[in-house]
Amino acid sequence: VEAAKLGAVGVIIRSVTHALDNNPHTGATRYDSTVTKIPAMAMSTMDAEWLSALLKKEKGVQLFMKQDCKQYPDVPSYNVIGELRGTEFPNEIITAGGHLDSWDLAEGAHDDGTGCMQSIEVIRSLKAMGIKPRRTIRAVMFMNEENGLRGGNAYAEAAKKATNEKHIFAVESDAGGFGAVTLGISGKPEQLEKAKSWAGLVRPYGVYQITDGGGGADIGPLRPLGTVMCGVNPGSQRYFDHHHAPNDTFETVHKRELEQGALSMAAICWLVSEYGL
Amino acid sequence: VEAAKLGAVGVIIRSVTHALDNNPHTGATRYDSTVTKIPAMAMSTMDAEWLSALLKKEKGVQLFMKQDCKQYPDVPSYNVIGELRGTEFPNEIITAGGHLDSWDLAEGAHDDGTGCMQSIEVIRSLKAMGIKPRRTIRAVMFMNEENGLRGGNAYAEAAKKATNEKHIFAVESDAGGFGAVTLGISGKPEQLEKAKSWAGLVRPYGVYQITDGGGGADIGPLRPLGTVMCGVNPGSQRYFDHHHAPNDTFETVHKRELEQGALSMAAICWLVSEYGL
Repeated sequence: VEAAKLGAVGVIIRSVTHALDNNPHTGATRYDSTVTKIPAMAMSTMDAEWLSALLKKEKGVQLFMKQDCKQYPDVPSYNVIGELRGTEFPNEIITAGGHLDSWDLAEGAHDDGTGCMQSIEVIRSLKAMGIKPRRTIRAVMFMNEENGLRGGNAYAEAAKKATNEKHIFAVESDAGGFGAVTLGISGKPEQLEKAKSWAGLVRPYGVYQITDGGGGADIGPLRPLGTVMCGVNPGSQRYFDHHHAPNDTFETVHKRELEQGALSMAAICWLVSEYGL
Repeated sequence: VEAAKLGAVGVIIRSVTHALDNNPHTGATRYDSTVTKIPAMAMSTMDAEWLSALLKKEKGVQLFMKQDCKQYPDVPSYNVIGELRGTEFPNEIITAGGHLDSWDLAEGAHDDGTGCMQSIEVIRSLKAMGIKPRRTIRAVMFMNEENGLRGGNAYAEAAKKATNEKHIFAVESDAGGFGAVTLGISGKPEQLEKAKSWAGLVRPYGVYQITDGGGGADIGPLRPLGTVMCGVNPGSQRYFDHHHAPNDTFETVHKRELEQGALSMAAICWLVSEYGL
């Protein structure tokens, strides 16, 4: 938008990543209806370094842009949901989620295959331990997070209409399958205080803090219903090596880190199920 | 020792690692002079699974052991030391260390090439920022940690003799170059309390806690001198994938994690240099 205002015919950005490599990182562009739409691209950090050096060294550098990406018409799709019904308060819903869709240039292993698997693992691990939660715990794989939060919005709309459901808590894993070092919580001060009182229970598993502020894109639309939000926060060093890039692939996921993140989600869901929030 | 007491002719252990792969992990064996010495080996976890299945399935399984490892005579070697002299209290020494030696079956990138590089980086980064520490900060690459702490012992011996040196603090990175999530401190209660008061300064960089208890093998011999000990603790999920194994290689080190660990060491060294402990 800013480039178009200045008369640019197109815009190329250096990929937003910590890594110096040859992978361009994709993403969405927001246009402004009052300004001419111009094509936008991202280049890899290595290419950006090279282009920058060239621009400093030579005059009259020319660059040719060609794109063939396009937006297809909407088609129906679905969130995928599984749940363990609560034994005492089945109408109080705890949601553990990730999103099913990914960008087309890779598998989307970390964004957000791992979040989906971790959400399923919340249910599987509680079942495997024979735990019957007091409140209902739901694993939700949200559809179409990347292009408009359609699944998250549809889930919240359904939650609003379901007068027999009270959505008390939702946790999302959408920051890479690198385990959890903190859990971030957004809620009322007394809810945050209660969640923080559980910190000692998860610390031995490498979840060092329960902190103020957190959530996720897909669960965000539940917020106006008074749902307490929670985000699984891994260490931040590696996610943007893979985020929206061709190397967001299965082999870059570490099994134990994936499991540790999943069990952190399971722990916080079980605690809320057992003690409320 | 326990197997020999029971009449075993040799012992083979499942490699002590979290990973399920084909890499045997080496290490040292401690013998007892009152018991017959028997050969000891480690096998990969995949091989151990296979052997275990075979032993359950078949009777009369035979296993052939052959070793050609041996202990060579001692030769002189050296710790490698660089320092920034303190401007106000040059005789108060802060040691940041890792160890130079590694097992022969790999490069020893995480054990402990990364600790050496991080120790050098403590000095380099402070110099690059133009910081002149009040106390002396020393980067020490200890020799022969793996077979008897020879470098660590020699350094502590020299420290005892150097009556003009007061070794107030030592930090070691020898748990893999995966960054730092906590710093563990061993010292008097008031020293720990003072160190913990700095927690808010390092938290924004992903060092979530300063905790009670920590140190490192090489700096350990300084402990009787009253030196406060500190260990750099990364997340524990990945180190034992590589520890003492053929895949402890350079390409498994993540640049930003390595840097984050180094700068955590630099931060704690600078804080001790500036404010004492």
